[in-house]
Amino acid sequence: MQCVKVLGGVLGAAALLGLGIILGHFAIPKGTDLPAPSASASQDLDLEILEAVMGQLDADRIRENLRELSKEPHLATSPRDEVLVQLLLRRWQDPESGLDSAGTSEYEVLLSFPSQKQPNRVDVVGPAGGILFSSQRSEENLTGEQGDPNVVPPYAAYAPPGTPQGLLVYANRGSEEDFMELYQQGIKLQDSIVLTRYGGVGRRAKAVNAAKYGVSGVLVYTDPADINDGKSLPNETFPHSWGLPPSGVERGSYFEYFGDPLTPYLPANPSSFRLDSDNASGFPPIPTQPIGFKDAEVLLCNLQGASAPAAWQGALGCDYKLGPGFRSDGIFPAGSQVNVSVYNRLELRNSSNVLGIIRGAVEPDRYVLYGNHRDSWVHGAVDPSSGTAVLLELSRVLGTLLKKGTWRPRRSIVFASWGAEEFGLIGSTEFTEESFSKLQERAVAYINVDISVFANATLRAQGTPPVQSVIFSAAKQIRAPGPSSLSIYDNWIRYSNRSSPVYGLVPSLGTLGAGSDYAPFIHFLGISSMDIAYTYDRGKTSARIYPTYHTAFDTFDYVDKFVDPGFSSHQAVARTVGSVLLRLSDSLFLPLNVSDYSETLRSLLQAAQQDLGGLLEQHNISLGPLVTAVEKFEEAATVLGQHISALQKGTPDPLQVRMLNDQLMLLERTFLNSRAFPEERYYSHVLWAPRTGSVATFPGLSNACSKAMNTGPRSAAWAEVQRQLSILVVALEGAAATLRPVADLW
Amino acid sequence: MQCVKVLGGVLGAAALLGLGIILGHFAIPKGTDLPAPSASASQDLDLEILEAVMGQLDADRIRENLRELSKEPHLATSPRDEVLVQLLLRRWQDPESGLDSAGTSEYEVLLSFPSQKQPNRVDVVGPAGGILFSSQRSEENLTGEQGDPNVVPPYAAYAPPGTPQGLLVYANRGSEEDFMELYQQGIKLQDSIVLTRYGGVGRRAKAVNAAKYGVSGVLVYTDPADINDGKSLPNETFPHSWGLPPSGVERGSYFEYFGDPLTPYLPANPSSFRLDSDNASGFPPIPTQPIGFKDAEVLLCNLQGASAPAAWQGALGCDYKLGPGFRSDGIFPAGSQVNVSVYNRLELRNSSNVLGIIRGAVEPDRYVLYGNHRDSWVHGAVDPSSGTAVLLELSRVLGTLLKKGTWRPRRSIVFASWGAEEFGLIGSTEFTEESFSKLQERAVAYINVDISVFANATLRAQGTPPVQSVIFSAAKQIRAPGPSSLSIYDNWIRYSNRSSPVYGLVPSLGTLGAGSDYAPFIHFLGISSMDIAYTYDRGKTSARIYPTYHTAFDTFDYVDKFVDPGFSSHQAVARTVGSVLLRLSDSLFLPLNVSDYSETLRSLLQAAQQDLGGLLEQHNISLGPLVTAVEKFEEAATVLGQHISALQKGTPDPLQVRMLNDQLMLLERTFLNSRAFPEERYYSHVLWAPRTGSVATFPGLSNACSKAMNTGPRSAAWAEVQRQLSILVVALEGAAATLRPVADLW
Repeated sequence: MQCVKVLGGVLGAAALLGLGIILGHFAIPKGTDLPAPSASASQDLDLEILEAVMGQLDADRIRENLRELSKEPHLATSPRDEVLVQLLLRRWQDPESGLDSAGTSEYEVLLSFPSQKQPNRVDVVGPAGGILFSSQRSEENLTGEQGDPNVVPPYAAYAPPGTPQGLLVYANRGSEEDFMELYQQGIKLQDSIVLTRYGGVGRRAKAVNAAKYGVSGVLVYTDPADINDGKSLPNETFPHSWGLPPSGVERGSYFEYFGDPLTPYLPANPSSFRLDSDNASGFPPIPTQPIGFKDAEVLLCNLQGASAPAAWQGALGCDYKLGPGFRSDGIFPAGSQVNVSVYNRLELRNSSNVLGIIRGAVEPDRYVLYGNHRDSWVHGAVDPSSGTAVLLELSRVLGTLLKKGTWRPRRSIVFASWGAEEFGLIGSTEFTEESFSKLQERAVAYINVDISVFANATLRAQGTPPVQSVIFSAAKQIRAPGPSSLSIYDNWIRYSNRSSPVYGLVPSLGTLGAGSDYAPFIHFLGISSMDIAYTYDRGKTSARIYPTYHTAFDTFDYVDKFVDPGFSSHQAVARTVGSVLLRLSDSLFLPLNVSDYSETLRSLLQAAQQDLGGLLEQHNISLGPLVTAVEKFEEAATVLGQHISALQKGTPDPLQVRMLNDQLMLLERTFLNSRAFPEERYYSHVLWAPRTGSVATFPGLSNACSKAMNTGPRSAAWAEVQRQLSILVVALEGAAATLRPVADLW
Repeated sequence: MQCVKVLGGVLGAAALLGLGIILGHFAIPKGTDLPAPSASASQDLDLEILEAVMGQLDADRIRENLRELSKEPHLATSPRDEVLVQLLLRRWQDPESGLDSAGTSEYEVLLSFPSQKQPNRVDVVGPAGGILFSSQRSEENLTGEQGDPNVVPPYAAYAPPGTPQGLLVYANRGSEEDFMELYQQGIKLQDSIVLTRYGGVGRRAKAVNAAKYGVSGVLVYTDPADINDGKSLPNETFPHSWGLPPSGVERGSYFEYFGDPLTPYLPANPSSFRLDSDNASGFPPIPTQPIGFKDAEVLLCNLQGASAPAAWQGALGCDYKLGPGFRSDGIFPAGSQVNVSVYNRLELRNSSNVLGIIRGAVEPDRYVLYGNHRDSWVHGAVDPSSGTAVLLELSRVLGTLLKKGTWRPRRSIVFASWGAEEFGLIGSTEFTEESFSKLQERAVAYINVDISVFANATLRAQGTPPVQSVIFSAAKQIRAPGPSSLSIYDNWIRYSNRSSPVYGLVPSLGTLGAGSDYAPFIHFLGISSMDIAYTYDRGKTSARIYPTYHTAFDTFDYVDKFVDPGFSSHQAVARTVGSVLLRLSDSLFLPLNVSDYSETLRSLLQAAQQDLGGLLEQHNISLGPLVTAVEKFEEAATVLGQHISALQKGTPDPLQVRMLNDQLMLLERTFLNSRAFPEERYYSHVLWAPRTGSVATFPGLSNACSKAMNTGPRSAAWAEVQRQLSILVVALEGAAATLRPVADLW
């Protein structure tokens, strides 16, 4: 999982509820003979098959998958990564439990690695030039796995090489506001080294913001306050708990975009046009290196200067000062500097995707895709193997039904194991670039399960509105793991909910950012997408993410002992995803409830009216056309819903159903505009592009208003507001047109 | 018709052939009862219906349509244009012969008109400042129609206002080469007025090229050598023949792009974001005015200086000199200058499209579109009313069958009457911008018939390869007009043919430029498109286009007497288009022969290999991946063709046919890449974008090679060659993927 902010957005109130319905009596023994599949045009979801699949998804097998997948470090393109490619291929080609076909596709992509000969290092250099302190080059070997020679030392992928040296300054999270604060306090930043902590802003942003102030090098660490609920002692952390050990270091990609850096919009085939790496953009501007909090403590707790603001303080057990430089009564002599030596290098490497297909019986040209990445930073038990372990179990169960001749889905199912996600969703992005047309024509939905289990409290799902209903349907019919007898749905609603004007209280579906491989599918291709996992009780931890994220402590034992003992949460995710996948691939009518977009559009519109209406009015910009467009969408969606209900009551003609399903499938595509955000690579979806503006409304409008706000009335920035508004109106009108009766006059 | 070069490209050898097969016994009387339509999923083309339609298409009714349509000038957005909107609506809403529904859509678009108060003028000003000669402000009233107060005086639409004055220089066609020649001959161009003749390069290009040399004003005329086969006397021209009278002036749009100039990529709705007209691009840089050859003769035959090169000479009966300025022994005193006074102004106007729909019985969500523009420069009998007269007759015949309950097509048919085409394909472009998603999802093909009859010799068709076969099928079954008993196809092959590696000798299908409303459909949306007309015997005339093009002499009588007496060519076009339309809308299997793209790709590839291979090799750029991609396409197309043949022999499942038809329909879309040509507005089709490079191969590659040729090996221009090659390879691989079996593994 490539992650800036995994959490946030979906955390609602957790309310104690009464008993839910007891569901999910998955008692059908393996091997039960089910009726042979019929390939009639009216083939619909078979609840017996669904129940069989639910029953056959096996927690122990998921556990064994995970053990195998996380046995060794499998950094993208490493030998072990290739071993896992073969493992996936073997599984998907198994004559008893495999798919119709499986294969690999390879791309030549630009990755970044630390030098083996010259390890990256962080030193404190005394006034006389002697090295007074050096950061740990690797994590402590607490469980044996950390000593594996294939553990990649901590580094900031794509950070440029360099050996800057200067006085140390503490810069909190390295946000624009943080540097502004330092600047206003008169802290000299020019030629300094800044120490920042993970969180708040993206990895690369810390270096970008720093470089604007003349900073020459950046350190990044994880504060125990942000990851361990404050705990920092060795005996409070892994292997004694799930906490991050003091030597643990979060690796990560510091690349701004996603996809191969040298081949934007083109698949990274060997013959493809490549930018010179000098012309590639999106890398951090200055050397950057992550360190553990044990090392950070030594640096931070010896700083001089004013105390950092209260919000900047952490859990390292000292008062965090700002610097610059170390205090004279600390362990380093006054004038000591910090040297950051980064020897990362860029390398073209071959990275593989593995793809497996179950051919649809009735509509083989409609694809339901389900994928996860394969590469990890180290052993990657949670990230991404917890997802792949589920993927393999689900493909085994479905493959077995297939090979027995018991079942063949109505539509085709595509399983995918993406390469090089950790470097920036590279495998999945190259795939979407290569298969752009085919996917735009035929993809029904993309399901992503990266980290399948963060923790055992509740389901967490992110997606665009049309997938809400199918996830809810699945979640209602599966029992939540653990002692409660609630359904996953009823458990979920206790942890995270919202009040829907249409449905009343429902679980909160989160929105899709760019944290995993769904990003190119939704943002670049406009394919309805979702990401599913089991996650925390936010009443019990405020950790940014699970503590050993991207460290050498994310191992099988970590999962087995602390994350999901018994693997019942893994099983719950497998069932949820299995049910969603079967519903999407087998239902006669696609279970994409497009009218759920009405609620989203109305709420984005209301935010625009409330928080931007006055400002826009002052500039003679009317929201009227946007209001009309939203109304048109709502009306078209309502009428279409009625049409579907009517059809479902009769015995609809297969072509009628196909036409209707095409409307449902293609709706998400209508929100794409490749010219809407020329500065945003791949982002074309006018509803889900990144929002930097302060108002939580349509991103193009919000961002443009933020930029225009302090400009004159005839500025280019105000013209851009109007352009964004028009782009939005055209997209919504186009979406409504796609939903209206297909022979309606223009 | 908005036209730079209407002819060219499709002119093959005309060979005398023996007798063809006698076809087209269209003897079914009007009103014959045909069987009632069956809306079964297997509904296929009904040859009886086809024959009935052929028989009912009536030359006299086309003639009456034309008389009504061309009765008065109907410049875009003029009151008469609105009258015709109502006429079309009435016809399409007629209870006996109308369509299922009809309506209008209005756009607020930027047009350019001459001032009524201050007429544009071209004067010769003597050394003392007196006006010695003035050009005609309007065409001579030879037949009564030219005196209509609604005749718009000749002007260059979108040329900026201004009153430049200077010595006159003759600049041939105003091409880059022409100005280079003048420059090399030492002719002073700075502050001059240049006289150019139509043809060779686009209208605006003359002004753009001139402005680069400091020219301050441009005159454009039509030389009798280029339009009248040399004839220039009043009694040799209309109304005595079809020739252009000496006072005739070609009007036209001098706008570079197509679509509304202020709303690129957005529909020009009243609320849409608009560029400031100062920020709009694509207008001519300097005042420009067209004049007749009678006026041009006075100017040109009095020039002094060296004789123009032989290729620059025309048919005005004097030796064309270059200038600058007039010869002292001519009718103007030495030092006389030419003053060009242009008072054009830009205006936002409401322009309407009229749309009519016949709802498909089986697949209402598949659209076959058939359109033409409605607006003319003056009476517009040939351009565009000859096309609209055919459109109305075909919609009447089909509407009558529909209203009688005799027939309903399998797919929906959309009839369109576009507004403001003459200003730059504005109505059709705005339509494609507004309906982008719906059309991309559902449009099967776009048929354009603008000028339906240029002359009576032969069919002329332009289109992308998949439409070749359906046009051939139609043309083979209809008798050519005139005394011969050949089919349209057999007649066509005599005038224009090529040797196909697959089929042997076949008529030449021309390629689509941007001369009429098909442009946004093919270039922007990737919808297989075609343009159909009857045209000249190139052995009999070398006219650039029909002589009264865009003048006040393009009247009903002109057509009735000279272009198509008896209207049998109009009828032939109506039958051809009717047959194509019915085949596309009614055939169970879409009659789009995608494998005809193989031949095109192979020939473009061969040109690249032959004419660029060496150059590319020198720069270490391999055509290998392109060769492979073309081979993959060929193979996929062949296999798909076999699959179709096999299916056609059995009784295929309706869903199977639908899936296959989706492949055929969507193939053209796979060639789009919105990022391929960032400097070309709307052009996204990687095979049919404008080619400026000298090698007749894939346009992106050809253009990039032309630019790179004289740059260093590591230039950005060579990187662009590689980028274009990759874009092409990805598109072709994507196209092949769309044609391959739909459940094939990636």
